[in-house]
Amino acid sequence: MSSVDKQLDELKTDVEQQIPNDITVTDVKYEGPELVLYTPDPKRFAGDGELVRKLASKFRKRITIRPDPTALTDTTTAEEKILSVIPEEARVTDLDFHHDTGEVVIEAGKPGMVIGRHGATLREITKEVGWTPEVVRTPPIESSTVSNVRNFLKQERDDRRDILERVGRQIHREQLGREEWVRISTLGCCREVGRASFVLSTADTRILIDCGDKPGAEGEVPYLQVPEALGSGANSIDAVVLTHAHLDHSALIPLLFKYGYDGPIYCTEPTRDLMGLLTLDYLDVAAKEGRAPPYESEMVREAIKHTIPIEYGDVTDIAPDIKLTFHNAGHILGSAVSHFHIGDGMYNVAFSGDIHYKDTRLFNGAVNDFPRVETLVMESTYGGRNDYQTDQADSEANLVEIINETYEKGGKIVIPAFAVGRSQEIMLVLEEAMRSGKIPSMPVHLDGMIWEATAIHTTYPEYLRDDLRDRIFHEDKNPFLADEFNHIDAGEEERQDVADGDQCIILSTSGMVTGGPIMSWLRHIGPDPDSRLVFVGYQAQGTLGRRIQTGWDEIPVPNPNDAGRTSTLSLNMDVSTVDGFSGHADREGLMNFVGTMNPRPEKVLCVHGDERSVQDLSSALYHEYNMRTFAPKNLETFRFK
Amino acid sequence: MSSVDKQLDELKTDVEQQIPNDITVTDVKYEGPELVLYTPDPKRFAGDGELVRKLASKFRKRITIRPDPTALTDTTTAEEKILSVIPEEARVTDLDFHHDTGEVVIEAGKPGMVIGRHGATLREITKEVGWTPEVVRTPPIESSTVSNVRNFLKQERDDRRDILERVGRQIHREQLGREEWVRISTLGCCREVGRASFVLSTADTRILIDCGDKPGAEGEVPYLQVPEALGSGANSIDAVVLTHAHLDHSALIPLLFKYGYDGPIYCTEPTRDLMGLLTLDYLDVAAKEGRAPPYESEMVREAIKHTIPIEYGDVTDIAPDIKLTFHNAGHILGSAVSHFHIGDGMYNVAFSGDIHYKDTRLFNGAVNDFPRVETLVMESTYGGRNDYQTDQADSEANLVEIINETYEKGGKIVIPAFAVGRSQEIMLVLEEAMRSGKIPSMPVHLDGMIWEATAIHTTYPEYLRDDLRDRIFHEDKNPFLADEFNHIDAGEEERQDVADGDQCIILSTSGMVTGGPIMSWLRHIGPDPDSRLVFVGYQAQGTLGRRIQTGWDEIPVPNPNDAGRTSTLSLNMDVSTVDGFSGHADREGLMNFVGTMNPRPEKVLCVHGDERSVQDLSSALYHEYNMRTFAPKNLETFRFK
Ligand SMILES: [Zn+2]
Ligand SMILES: [Zn+2]
Ligand SMILES: [Zn+2]
Ligand SMILES: [Zn+2]
Ligand SMILES: [Zn+2]
Repeated sequence: MSSVDKQLDELKTDVEQQIPNDITVTDVKYEGPELVLYTPDPKRFAGDGELVRKLASKFRKRITIRPDPTALTDTTTAEEKILSVIPEEARVTDLDFHHDTGEVVIEAGKPGMVIGRHGATLREITKEVGWTPEVVRTPPIESSTVSNVRNFLKQERDDRRDILERVGRQIHREQLGREEWVRISTLGCCREVGRASFVLSTADTRILIDCGDKPGAEGEVPYLQVPEALGSGANSIDAVVLTHAHLDHSALIPLLFKYGYDGPIYCTEPTRDLMGLLTLDYLDVAAKEGRAPPYESEMVREAIKHTIPIEYGDVTDIAPDIKLTFHNAGHILGSAVSHFHIGDGMYNVAFSGDIHYKDTRLFNGAVNDFPRVETLVMESTYGGRNDYQTDQADSEANLVEIINETYEKGGKIVIPAFAVGRSQEIMLVLEEAMRSGKIPSMPVHLDGMIWEATAIHTTYPEYLRDDLRDRIFHEDKNPFLADEFNHIDAGEEERQDVADGDQCIILSTSGMVTGGPIMSWLRHIGPDPDSRLVFVGYQAQGTLGRRIQTGWDEIPVPNPNDAGRTSTLSLNMDVSTVDGFSGHADREGLMNFVGTMNPRPEKVLCVHGDERSVQDLSSALYHEYNMRTFAPKNLETFRFK
Repeated sequence: MSSVDKQLDELKTDVEQQIPNDITVTDVKYEGPELVLYTPDPKRFAGDGELVRKLASKFRKRITIRPDPTALTDTTTAEEKILSVIPEEARVTDLDFHHDTGEVVIEAGKPGMVIGRHGATLREITKEVGWTPEVVRTPPIESSTVSNVRNFLKQERDDRRDILERVGRQIHREQLGREEWVRISTLGCCREVGRASFVLSTADTRILIDCGDKPGAEGEVPYLQVPEALGSGANSIDAVVLTHAHLDHSALIPLLFKYGYDGPIYCTEPTRDLMGLLTLDYLDVAAKEGRAPPYESEMVREAIKHTIPIEYGDVTDIAPDIKLTFHNAGHILGSAVSHFHIGDGMYNVAFSGDIHYKDTRLFNGAVNDFPRVETLVMESTYGGRNDYQTDQADSEANLVEIINETYEKGGKIVIPAFAVGRSQEIMLVLEEAMRSGKIPSMPVHLDGMIWEATAIHTTYPEYLRDDLRDRIFHEDKNPFLADEFNHIDAGEEERQDVADGDQCIILSTSGMVTGGPIMSWLRHIGPDPDSRLVFVGYQAQGTLGRRIQTGWDEIPVPNPNDAGRTSTLSLNMDVSTVDGFSGHADREGLMNFVGTMNPRPEKVLCVHGDERSVQDLSSALYHEYNMRTFAPKNLETFRFK
């Protein structure tokens, strides 16, 4: 009998001692980090709201109750009863019964009303029908990504349960309890931006954190082949943790599965969906640009299948000696500061991932409050001595002024923007400005992946700033549903109509004018001297966006009639840049994030910044706060305990 | 056809172009780092002294000529001819013909006379008989270690050729030529003395340097199980380099073979023999103390079989991208500063191993002159601010005085000493003092492994200080053969006789009075108030030696009549300590070694010292020479390129 089986046997006996004699538990299993109890008495568990909570706190595990098939009401009757229990305002859009697990997935416009106060409605459902309800939100804006992911996971349920059971046994395996030490190895994004990847290791466990690419530097991928990463076998890695979906952190996650990795990926639910969206687009772009993609789209599906989503604040066992907790990072949807609690308090490490420290319209500022933290691995994108950003209020006033000027001249406003994060922030600025009359109401056309990314945002309002979340919960106040927003979904023809039409604002990808529909908009509107091109995001060296910023006005655009060729376009429209909408904390924000961190870490590794930024930030943190700071190189290993 | 076979094919063609048309080369193979040419014309190669030298410099390899069996004179005739070519004063003691390789191993008292000027006599032998002569020294003092090793290697010749061929192909495999980087990972002896072990790695190659135990700290072994060491498979290591035979560097080398390692060990020839002696004794001591030895003596033989000996100054390919050169370290017999030339000049790293910077009676001071060196990994045993040692001249005067005093009182002198190194140094001091009349001539009894270790020293005089080497070459001047020296080889009875006899000096192991025959000497002589116990080496915390130094005079000794029990002994003899005979450089020596190093390294990792010593030395090197210095912890990885 394996040590895990022995452990489960003992757990079963312990559980039986904690519950009334007349409730039966037939089996106890791990599924991922959760403990699953099989019972012919699901209604009894549902009848006592305290019972599961007591077990969870006693065993320090998340507990799932799984009913025996015998305890389940037939689906026709069950559907009727469930719909009678849930208030109509919850707007249930789908019920999906899974006989294998006794779960019923309820998709509803207002999940909170399905859950009820402290889960009262959920328990009511189980008491009525025996089934275990699971609730998901009906996307307020239809998202093909979300529905594809959900359908795919539905179809792969069997495989997924096998994976979860295997992962569960792996997490709860016997700890070898050899020496106690904690190390971090750097595989990328040290003294550079891009290819974020780290290994956090103990004598028992190895965790890979992020696995991104380096945009604009093909072939510079994380050093995955070294022995401390995948060099000693893809499955020498116990778990992968993904801080957020940006490609410089996620692009090569699917590649791990091509290399034979078969373990879990921990990230938030929106990060999972955005990773799906962005990595598939990454493959698309590679194909369009004639580069061999590093993996097939099948591997993206593998990654999604192996994802175990975690919510902010949930303390989750991911290895015998490591607990992971995500906290809001304020950077993009689902982005997480990742906190690792190691060896029952022996050591604590936080990875900032990418952060924004102040509140924005879209997100609350990054969390920097932890039970304990000795070492912080800190992003340093704007860590340079002079990397201060304009206040967002000033930036917004600036943008409003530019829009009004252009509107008065009768021109159109074209804004190249990243699909995820910055677009939604600008949408919120525009919506508010129109609602409050700071700018005239006019159509805002959303092109490229922006609409789809916005739909994903509205599916996960819990991950947005609290007042925004509240507005999305009330359909009539959901700013993303404002009448002015129009999804460009009919291609060139629609663009031509828009270009020929009245004054309007256009938000389009790509954000750095390196391809995508923005090229088309430039062709349509670029020649118009009354219109204005407004940059709201960082334009990297070597991109067309940067060239236009620095004064180029003869620009190459793809010939619409002949794919392979480009023609030259005279750019007559005005060009403006509005700073201050970055998703990254500026120098002040980074310093404050560390300076107000509770508790103050002893050591900080400054990463994810160019050479000068990491050195400046490292030195400032040392002098200001008297911490031990490091500016690691790639391929180094630091020991902390 | 493998890339190595292709390479050898091309080499054969190239060789044929370099040699006269009428000399045939039938095959070309690698054996370890050497290139072996098979030929039916060995006499032709021997006839032209320049030919092999030209080939070696052209191909930058050591070249071995191996004759076809057809070219060999029958052994009876050959023996006769060989003995007629070699001058009688060479004192040939053995001729050993190996038909498989066409080699004849000639053991002689004066190997230099077998070699002749620039190898002239060797070439003469081949010209006469076709056989390839190989010369070894007849140990001037019979050494069972040396003869066991030689006999074992003779018996394992077939296996060994297989190993060498495999290693040769491994060394000359195609280089993958991926990224260029150089890293050092620390597996032990950081902020501590003991369990020396490092991994030097590039994208292509991993070298393990040393693999010792930590005396007095059982269970604290090098972190071999981490992925950058053996964690990704014992044979993910390309080669092992052993700086010297002390157990804190060598004890766990045989363990590697138990773990499945099957590659080469590079060290000097005396290090190989001393490693055999010391690791077998290590197993013995473990057994006697009732500890489970970590490996069987069979593994020591495996280690010896896999050893490829290298002489000081020989540049040797040990991997496609790494050349190793050993230099005298002045610490113990065969100890080597190990220089790694990486990636055809991309980077150079030197590992000091343990060093003594000044000349001693036994050894020249450590070499610190290299073609290039960017990073130095530096021992720091006496790196502390105040770790200055008495000058050896003063120490010797001190010892002489103590001996004379004791002699006048009619007492005996008992000196606990380490078998390897310090004993021979003291023997040289005593021999010189008697010869020059500074102390009266009296017997010096050598007990424990001291005699055997001395025999090994005299087998390899090339590794001793130059003037000492010259004296050993002239038998009548060999100081170790002085009449006063007596090998205690008849056990307790002989000890009793000595104890009952006249004034004398006794050198006995163990050096820290932790066991061995010194315990017996204390029982015999300890109660005599006219005799004197003299410490000449460092006594570690927790050892009986240290306790006696600090004043204990009631000491536990094993009961000679009842093994398992101890009795208490009143120590009435005087106790003295004479500093200054250390095998390690003191603080000044370490600073000078680095300060006068040519060229001065950019970076220094201070290791092999307690916390305070490495920090002090690291800080002193930084402030004095403005170098980048580090005091690594175990389990860290530093990247240098
Ligand atoms: Zn990001
Ligand atoms: Zn990033
Ligand atoms: Zn040593
Ligand atoms: Zn040592
Ligand atoms: Zn072998």
